[in-house]
Amino acid sequence: MATLGAQKKHKVTIVGSGNWGTTMSKLVAENVKENQALFDQTVQMWVFEEDVTIPKESRHYDPGSETSNKPQKLSQLINTVHENIKYLPGITLPSNVVANPDLVDSVKGSTILIFVLPHQFIPRVCDQLAGHIVPFARAICCTKGVDVSEKGIRLMSEAIGMRLGIYCGALSGANIASEIAQEKYSETTVAYDPPPMDSRAPTPKGSPTSSTVDLISPGKPSADGKRTAQLKALPSDYPPLSHDNVKKLFHRPYFHVRIVDDVVGVSLGGALKNIIALAAGFVDGLGWGDNAKAAVMRVGILEMVKFGKAFFGDSSHTSTFTEESCGVADVITSCMGGRNFKCAKKAVAEGLSINEIEQRDLNGQKLQGTSTAYEVNAFLKSKGVEKDYPLFTVVYNILEGKLKPEDIPDQIEPK
Amino acid sequence: MATLGAQKKHKVTIVGSGNWGTTMSKLVAENVKENQALFDQTVQMWVFEEDVTIPKESRHYDPGSETSNKPQKLSQLINTVHENIKYLPGITLPSNVVANPDLVDSVKGSTILIFVLPHQFIPRVCDQLAGHIVPFARAICCTKGVDVSEKGIRLMSEAIGMRLGIYCGALSGANIASEIAQEKYSETTVAYDPPPMDSRAPTPKGSPTSSTVDLISPGKPSADGKRTAQLKALPSDYPPLSHDNVKKLFHRPYFHVRIVDDVVGVSLGGALKNIIALAAGFVDGLGWGDNAKAAVMRVGILEMVKFGKAFFGDSSHTSTFTEESCGVADVITSCMGGRNFKCAKKAVAEGLSINEIEQRDLNGQKLQGTSTAYEVNAFLKSKGVEKDYPLFTVVYNILEGKLKPEDIPDQIEPK
Repeated sequence: MATLGAQKKHKVTIVGSGNWGTTMSKLVAENVKENQALFDQTVQMWVFEEDVTIPKESRHYDPGSETSNKPQKLSQLINTVHENIKYLPGITLPSNVVANPDLVDSVKGSTILIFVLPHQFIPRVCDQLAGHIVPFARAICCTKGVDVSEKGIRLMSEAIGMRLGIYCGALSGANIASEIAQEKYSETTVAYDPPPMDSRAPTPKGSPTSSTVDLISPGKPSADGKRTAQLKALPSDYPPLSHDNVKKLFHRPYFHVRIVDDVVGVSLGGALKNIIALAAGFVDGLGWGDNAKAAVMRVGILEMVKFGKAFFGDSSHTSTFTEESCGVADVITSCMGGRNFKCAKKAVAEGLSINEIEQRDLNGQKLQGTSTAYEVNAFLKSKGVEKDYPLFTVVYNILEGKLKPEDIPDQIEPK
Repeated sequence: MATLGAQKKHKVTIVGSGNWGTTMSKLVAENVKENQALFDQTVQMWVFEEDVTIPKESRHYDPGSETSNKPQKLSQLINTVHENIKYLPGITLPSNVVANPDLVDSVKGSTILIFVLPHQFIPRVCDQLAGHIVPFARAICCTKGVDVSEKGIRLMSEAIGMRLGIYCGALSGANIASEIAQEKYSETTVAYDPPPMDSRAPTPKGSPTSSTVDLISPGKPSADGKRTAQLKALPSDYPPLSHDNVKKLFHRPYFHVRIVDDVVGVSLGGALKNIIALAAGFVDGLGWGDNAKAAVMRVGILEMVKFGKAFFGDSSHTSTFTEESCGVADVITSCMGGRNFKCAKKAVAEGLSINEIEQRDLNGQKLQGTSTAYEVNAFLKSKGVEKDYPLFTVVYNILEGKLKPEDIPDQIEPK
C-alpha cells in the first residue's frame, strides 16, 4: 500500500557518528534491511574524520598486526571492523552502515537526513550542506536542546530546516544511547508533521516532479515570530513519508517509537528536563528522599506544559509532556541517573558549587542543565514572567547563589 | 470569610495510629493550631490498644525507671511521651494529639474523620462506628487501594461512605510516611467533591439544622453499578468544608496539597501503581537500565488512564494520573524504591519467584502489587478486555509463570 506507484526508494544519511549517531545508524540500518521496498539498502554515516589507534582492550586489537599499533582513519576502521571503536566500542554495526568522511558526498542522493550532531556543530554543518542536498529531502533532528536567549527560542529542528530549506522533524525520548546500542528495551518519540505538500494527487503532465509551497517555518510558530520557507514536495515516484513509513525507519523490537505531530513539545522536553534534573539532584543531595524527588519532577513537568502553552500556543500539546517518552519518561530517566542530576546531587552533598563539581568530574565537558537554566531564565525575565515558573526560577537562583536548595519547597509552593 | 456566621468548629479524629496514621495526626494537629477559628484544638487519634515495652534504643527508655522495663498501654504511652514509640519512633507529636483506645469515644462530636487503617480492617471498624458518628460528618480515606474482583471495583472511600452514610473523599500521593514525619518535603493529592448539600443558603426558621439529600454514592458511579445514599448536610453554624478549608487541614510547608474533584482517579492511582512497580522491578532485575524502567512507567500511567476512563467514564480524569502526585509522582516513588519494585527486582536478579522473595524478606507481610495484579486481571478477564491492558496483563502472566520478564517489550508493543 505504502509503495503504490513508487519506483524509487529513500536513501538515508546519518549526519553524525558519536555515541548516539552510531547507535542511530545501527538501528536505522537494521530497519532498512527489513523494509527493502521503501529504503535503499545502504545507510551513509558521516564521520568527522580523525585518527584513532585501536585500544588494547578492544576485541579488534591484534598485537601481532602492524595496523593495530598505528593510528588509522576512523571512517576506514568503521568500514573494516564494523564497529565505532572510539564512540561505541563493543557494538557490531550492520554491514550496510557505510562510514563516509566526506560530508557532501555522504548526503548525495539522500532523501532522509538524520541529524545527530553536538548542538554547537549544527549551524556550521548545515552551512556546508546547503546547496548540496536533495532539495526535497526531509530531516529528523535527534540532537536535544533548543537555542534560548532573551531574543527568543529556536528549536534545533527549526535551525536545520531553515538553513537547508527542508522540513525537519525531531526525535527525543528516554534514550541513553549505550543502552539502546545493547538492544536493551527503550522507547522514543518522533515528532513529524510536515505541511501537506507531498500529496499523492496526480501532477499535471509536464509539470516538474517536485513543486514548492509556502508555509510557516518547520517547527511551527516559534517564540521569536513567524518565518516562512519554501519547501519542495516529495516527488510522487517516492514512497510517501507518512507516519507509518517514518515509524518503520526507527521502530525496533527493542526501541519502540510513538509518532506525534508536536515538534515543539518534543524539542522543549529534551531541553527543559535538564533544569528539572538539577532540581531533583539538589533535593536528593539534601537527603530528602523519594517523595521530594518525585514532587520536584511532577512540578517540573507541569512547568514544561505551561512554558509550551505560553510561548508556542496550540503548537505545544500537554500530552507530549505528560504522556510521551520525550516528556515524562525522559524526565524520569534524567532524574534517576543523568549527568545533571548527579552533579547537582554531589554539589549539595559535598557543599561545593556545581561549577566546581563540573570542573572536577566532567573532564572538560559542560553540563547542559546549567546553561539551559541561565538561558531560560534570561528569556523568562525578558518576558516578565519569572514568577510563573517557580521551579525553573529557583534552580537559576540556586546556581546564582541567591537561594539555597532548602528553599525549593517554599519557592514552588502555590501562594 | 470562610467562618462567616459559623460559631462551631470542626473536630477531627484520625481513625488509625500506625506509621501513616500517626504521621497524619502530627500534621493535622499542627494545622488545627494554625487555624483556630476553623478547628477544635484537640485531635483525637484512635489507637488499636496493645501493650508495648519501651525499647532500649528509645530516647524514652530510662534504665532506672520501673515503667521503662514493663509493658505499658500504647495509648497511655503516646499521651505521656508524645511519641508513638512502636509505629513512628523518634518523632515528637504535638501535645494536642490525644490517643484514645475507645473507637466510639474517639469519634464523639467529630465532624471530620480521617481513615488511615490497613485495608482489611476498614469494614469491621466502620461497622463498629455506624450509628455512633456525627451524622453530618465528612471522611477522608488515606488508605490506598481499591477492592477489585470479578464482580466489580469498589473504592475504599466508597466502602467507608456507604457503611457510615457520609461523604468520603480520598488522599493519596507520593507519600512515604517516615519521610513526611521527618518533615522532608513531599506532596499529596486530596480528592474531595461532595454533592451540593451544605449550601450556605439560610434555612427556614424552625427547620432542622441538618437536612438530607439523595445522591449517587460517594466516589461517583462505580464499576459495579450505581448506589445511592442519604447524606446529611453540614449545619450552617459550622465553617463550610470548602476546598480551601480542607486544604488547611492537610497542607504544611513540607507537605504540599493539591485538591481535585476526582475521587476515582486518586483511589485508582494508589492501587494500580503497584502493578507498574512490579513491572519496573522486573525490567530492572534484568539489568535493562533506566530507559526501560522509564518506558514501563510511562506505559503503565497510560494504562491507568485507560482503566479509569473505561470503567468510571467521566468520573476519572486523565490529568489526575498524568499531572498529580497521586498519579505520576506516586508511580515514580513506587518504582524507585517501593517494596513491590524491590521484591520484583530481586526475584528476577536472583532467579526466584516473587513469592519466595516475599516469604524470605517480608517477615510475614504481603505485597500489595501481586494481589492487585491478580484481582485486576480477574476483573479485566470478566470484561473480556485483558488485551487492552498489555502491561497489567503481562505482569499477571509473569506472576503466573506463563511469561517471562524478557517478554515485556514484545507484549506491550502496539501491534
